[in-house]
Amino acid sequence: MRAWRLPTWKSDPELVEVDQPRPGPGQVVVRIGGAGACHSDLHLMREFGAGQLPWEPPFTLGHENAGWVHETGEGVTGLPVGTPVAVHGSWGCGACSRCLAGLDTYCEDPAAAPIPSGGGGLGLDGGMAEFMLVPEARHLVPLPDGLDPVTAAPLTDAALTPYHAVRRSWPKLPPGSTAVVIGIGGLGHLAVQILKATTATRVIAVDTRAAALELAERAGADLVVPAGGRAADTIRGATGGRGADAVFDCVGNDATLALGAAAGRMLGDLTIIGLGGGTLPVSFFGVPYEMSVQSTYWGSRPELVEVLDLAARGLLRVTAITFPLDEALEAYRRLEAGDVVGRAVVVP
Amino acid sequence: MRAWRLPTWKSDPELVEVDQPRPGPGQVVVRIGGAGACHSDLHLMREFGAGQLPWEPPFTLGHENAGWVHETGEGVTGLPVGTPVAVHGSWGCGACSRCLAGLDTYCEDPAAAPIPSGGGGLGLDGGMAEFMLVPEARHLVPLPDGLDPVTAAPLTDAALTPYHAVRRSWPKLPPGSTAVVIGIGGLGHLAVQILKATTATRVIAVDTRAAALELAERAGADLVVPAGGRAADTIRGATGGRGADAVFDCVGNDATLALGAAAGRMLGDLTIIGLGGGTLPVSFFGVPYEMSVQSTYWGSRPELVEVLDLAARGLLRVTAITFPLDEALEAYRRLEAGDVVGRAVVVP
Amino acid sequence: MRAWRLPTWKSDPELVEVDQPRPGPGQVVVRIGGAGACHSDLHLMREFGAGQLPWEPPFTLGHENAGWVHETGEGVTGLPVGTPVAVHGSWGCGACSRCLAGLDTYCEDPAAAPIPSGGGGLGLDGGMAEFMLVPEARHLVPLPDGLDPVTAAPLTDAALTPYHAVRRSWPKLPPGSTAVVIGIGGLGHLAVQILKATTATRVIAVDTRAAALELAERAGADLVVPAGGRAADTIRGATGGRGADAVFDCVGNDATLALGAAAGRMLGDLTIIGLGGGTLPVSFFGVPYEMSVQSTYWGSRPELVEVLDLAARGLLRVTAITFPLDEALEAYRRLEAGDVVGRAVVVP
Amino acid sequence: MRAWRLPTWKSDPELVEVDQPRPGPGQVVVRIGGAGACHSDLHLMREFGAGQLPWEPPFTLGHENAGWVHETGEGVTGLPVGTPVAVHGSWGCGACSRCLAGLDTYCEDPAAAPIPSGGGGLGLDGGMAEFMLVPEARHLVPLPDGLDPVTAAPLTDAALTPYHAVRRSWPKLPPGSTAVVIGIGGLGHLAVQILKATTATRVIAVDTRAAALELAERAGADLVVPAGGRAADTIRGATGGRGADAVFDCVGNDATLALGAAAGRMLGDLTIIGLGGGTLPVSFFGVPYEMSVQSTYWGSRPELVEVLDLAARGLLRVTAITFPLDEALEAYRRLEAGDVVGRAVVVP
Repeated sequence: MRAWRLPTWKSDPELVEVDQPRPGPGQVVVRIGGAGACHSDLHLMREFGAGQLPWEPPFTLGHENAGWVHETGEGVTGLPVGTPVAVHGSWGCGACSRCLAGLDTYCEDPAAAPIPSGGGGLGLDGGMAEFMLVPEARHLVPLPDGLDPVTAAPLTDAALTPYHAVRRSWPKLPPGSTAVVIGIGGLGHLAVQILKATTATRVIAVDTRAAALELAERAGADLVVPAGGRAADTIRGATGGRGADAVFDCVGNDATLALGAAAGRMLGDLTIIGLGGGTLPVSFFGVPYEMSVQSTYWGSRPELVEVLDLAARGLLRVTAITFPLDEALEAYRRLEAGDVVGRAVVVP
Repeated sequence: MRAWRLPTWKSDPELVEVDQPRPGPGQVVVRIGGAGACHSDLHLMREFGAGQLPWEPPFTLGHENAGWVHETGEGVTGLPVGTPVAVHGSWGCGACSRCLAGLDTYCEDPAAAPIPSGGGGLGLDGGMAEFMLVPEARHLVPLPDGLDPVTAAPLTDAALTPYHAVRRSWPKLPPGSTAVVIGIGGLGHLAVQILKATTATRVIAVDTRAAALELAERAGADLVVPAGGRAADTIRGATGGRGADAVFDCVGNDATLALGAAAGRMLGDLTIIGLGGGTLPVSFFGVPYEMSVQSTYWGSRPELVEVLDLAARGLLRVTAITFPLDEALEAYRRLEAGDVVGRAVVVP
Repeated sequence: MRAWRLPTWKSDPELVEVDQPRPGPGQVVVRIGGAGACHSDLHLMREFGAGQLPWEPPFTLGHENAGWVHETGEGVTGLPVGTPVAVHGSWGCGACSRCLAGLDTYCEDPAAAPIPSGGGGLGLDGGMAEFMLVPEARHLVPLPDGLDPVTAAPLTDAALTPYHAVRRSWPKLPPGSTAVVIGIGGLGHLAVQILKATTATRVIAVDTRAAALELAERAGADLVVPAGGRAADTIRGATGGRGADAVFDCVGNDATLALGAAAGRMLGDLTIIGLGGGTLPVSFFGVPYEMSVQSTYWGSRPELVEVLDLAARGLLRVTAITFPLDEALEAYRRLEAGDVVGRAVVVP
Repeated sequence: MRAWRLPTWKSDPELVEVDQPRPGPGQVVVRIGGAGACHSDLHLMREFGAGQLPWEPPFTLGHENAGWVHETGEGVTGLPVGTPVAVHGSWGCGACSRCLAGLDTYCEDPAAAPIPSGGGGLGLDGGMAEFMLVPEARHLVPLPDGLDPVTAAPLTDAALTPYHAVRRSWPKLPPGSTAVVIGIGGLGHLAVQILKATTATRVIAVDTRAAALELAERAGADLVVPAGGRAADTIRGATGGRGADAVFDCVGNDATLALGAAAGRMLGDLTIIGLGGGTLPVSFFGVPYEMSVQSTYWGSRPELVEVLDLAARGLLRVTAITFPLDEALEAYRRLEAGDVVGRAVVVP
């Protein structure tokens, strides 16, 4: 079969012919229906070098995957061949308390995982290929009626990541509250939709780009605010001076984190989702009393089930462009050039 | 009556004769039975100057108070003269959602409070006097059987502050979890007792001083760790490599915050209680995933009720030295010299 | 002023001339803008007799009230004359832990309340009059922009009651869950809207009447099910055999409670809202494992703030017919005849 | 090997020679170190007949088991031979949302389980034998230091069952609250210890037997109350008239359920743990407002980890008598005669 493999660090992936995987006991081979091209893949191609991550090339790219069950190993039940499935992409040890709750993202025994702190497309072979080996059946979620693999693929990361962040803030977002989403790109426009679908909070969207603010309005934002010097004041003014009950920073640079702290409310949440490399200096009087600051990473398998339900019912829509398998490199090139609206999905 | 008033910034308090207060409608005058001398009073005497706080001297010191109802204003019910009471010391507007929940500490309309962001002993006359005016009856909590005002006074701050911080972390502290208390002074030795009384978590205490670590052991700590270079490794080793589910930093300087971040667990809590002036740089990869960092300030009136219950049942014991009213200055001097074991309580 | 007073048990109210109330310290007189006519008023007129309730006639009817601040007593701040307000109608002691949380409905010291287990229109003079005395300013909630007293009045009961019930079940209603509302009348059609506005659960509505099921669909129900022998099977079928995560029974007779138990899911909620007089026999194997059965009564003041926010933003709409003050009896007559669609509101 | 098998319904078990089980892929054979004899085994021997349960004899008894890993099937990792383990005894489908959270007790696809609504000793071969086959490695929990299999065996049921019930009520049991345990037998004396170890609630124990009340006092109960006509009044009096925040009924007959309802507080919990066959009629005014009534069944695997931690640290002690394997029938005979203090554990 054909697969886009990253041959070494600091290189482009290559479309090569590899053996089709076969499942061992408890494993499943998925025929890929859609594989999302993600900015973090560009980081893998461009930035990392030997010894910086717990794993090394070569491996097949693609960590946002959905498709159909193709072949199951001994002991796998409940997943007949042909079942449409999404792949939960973070694969931990399966035995620690986090993994047992489906939260492989926070596995506490990474040495016992199929690969430490990784998964398919992250050290092991991913979904930019015709088939993909999933090492444990529990990582698969059957798609609900109304969802196909092309639509489902980007939900496994671009939607699951903000969903996890929003879900943990639900208790702080009753009617009368305000949530701020900073950065209305692939994750942010889904964060807005998730907030509107699952709470009655007011949603304020912040971005530097007019087009992104328009996207936020289409996604349901109640108010859009251009990033910049007066954004915190605008948000504070729109909340009767109290500040936002939860801020979801999908950018994560110094400026957006400072905005989040300035716009936040006592007892609120400031959650760092974006990998913008920023730092927030936290001190007793430097942030609102009891505003919790934390970073969240991806999401859990039970949460993926909930995300798929939202999408199947039309409450969550990902804008996506599809590319055939042999044009995946073109998808990454356009992604790198900022020339993709929504998510790029490779369809073998 | 006599009262210890702070005459101006950067001065010692003076014992002067002032008019005994009389209660207006809804107000209560308390005859003081005990008033705690707190480090933050020393900050008021030594560090602040004009315009730095929302209020100015002169006012009577003392924000940790308990006593007996002496006189009640029109409309006050349920508080017969002679009732022993503790005073919840943070007085907000009484009308915002925070105040309505007894969380005056986080009042969102401080301009409408008796004094902005203050209370008795903090801009208004406090309890280092024979009598004290409490502007709303709701700030008083009748003492349960078995508690007297001398014992209760320090509970209103030195115990209430760590109690509030610990209580919000309860869901993260089931059996099998670990809590770390950094700084085993007035607040810290109560934090250890509160954790032992209200959860089954393992408690690790950290301090630089051997005597403080002994105090921690008497308070029930399961493990004591000397502060310093290897403390984080020791804690991580004692938790199977996972880190502590909650860290309560009762010091709050750069070094203790860094220790808290290094010793913390994914999904944990790092709560800044101490006013040590430190800063923690928080970034996506700089702290454990989804460890929440926040500062907490004092506690709520409903929580004060719970603290008093713990103490009345012997589950919380404050070590205290008493001083007569005319020796309050001596209490502050010994406090400043580090010559007080436990809490100094002035007894008019 | 004129007021509709219930002169004795088992009688119609009479429109009589009474003195306009004047506020004492801490009290407020509200000029009534709207007073809802409620089925429970009919119970007061028809069913009760001497000694059955903790209070007796005569008193002015009307416990669903909104209007404008007319006059304030000594010590009341933050409520200028003319402020549009809703009245939280349950008035407890104000000092127990429940009242201090705004949950006067569950006051634990009713003997210390203005009247035991009652309020305006329930033992004390209510809002079917030109003016109404509110005994504590804390019972008033200023209306947010976009809400007028006529619209707000029925929200204080017909919306607040199901809101309280739904809100406590939020943690059981993530995406993928199912909620059932039984009885789509005044409370039920608001329960459906509240579920749709505040969660992403699927909502199934059950009623015996086709018109009520149509109302449920307009309110946003995902599925409507005629009450009757097969309703439980239909619900179980629509939930993949699992049952409903929460059932809100706005009727509360034997049959609807049995349906709720048969349609419920392990770990779910069955909440009795309606006063239908029914009984559910609960035994270890007779209801799904760990399905919680409870009755809820009215709602809290903080929840009323949230309900008003939902309505002001158009997320909650009450169908209402208005009557002038001197036609209140006609409103009750039509209500009794089942000839009111939505809520009847009397407008002085 | 030798095993105590139930040959048919309504018979005593027989000690017979059977083949030692061998593990298939993902399975584990445990060498039994301790197997608890439970009252519910007596129900299996005496009361049930063909078609009443989803499974039939013959099978080996014993559903409270601990031992050492003896042999592991293909694909099992992290469980070296000789590891001391407790067996989580409820075995569900492993794929539904409940099983994925370790809550096999509430499996929603029992047809896909190894046996529907059962486990080892409940339709499949249990631990009253030298060896036992566990069908999935995830059902095993390694014992923490300080716990041996004889001590651990009864924890898997007699402690896990009340632990699950108590844990879900934690948010209702802060300092100042009161919990009632009805029935101080095998489960109840552990419920008292669990409450004391994990909360600061006051614990009231109720039983008809003086010896049981003495056991409750040794377990840490703050107050013991003889069952009978005045028990509810005594409890209400001891709680300032408010009632108990949580009632754990380890008996579950009509009288104890009625006591629980009469002694409960508004917003409290009444949890039915015991299989006493009783029924509580629940109606709007018949139980305290918003007191939740539910039955709970056994507990989850993550909770078993927590129970083992409590016991390893000495916070939970089971009184137990041991019997050699060939005297298991004698253990059941004494259990049936009421002649066992604490738990009977069979040690092969």
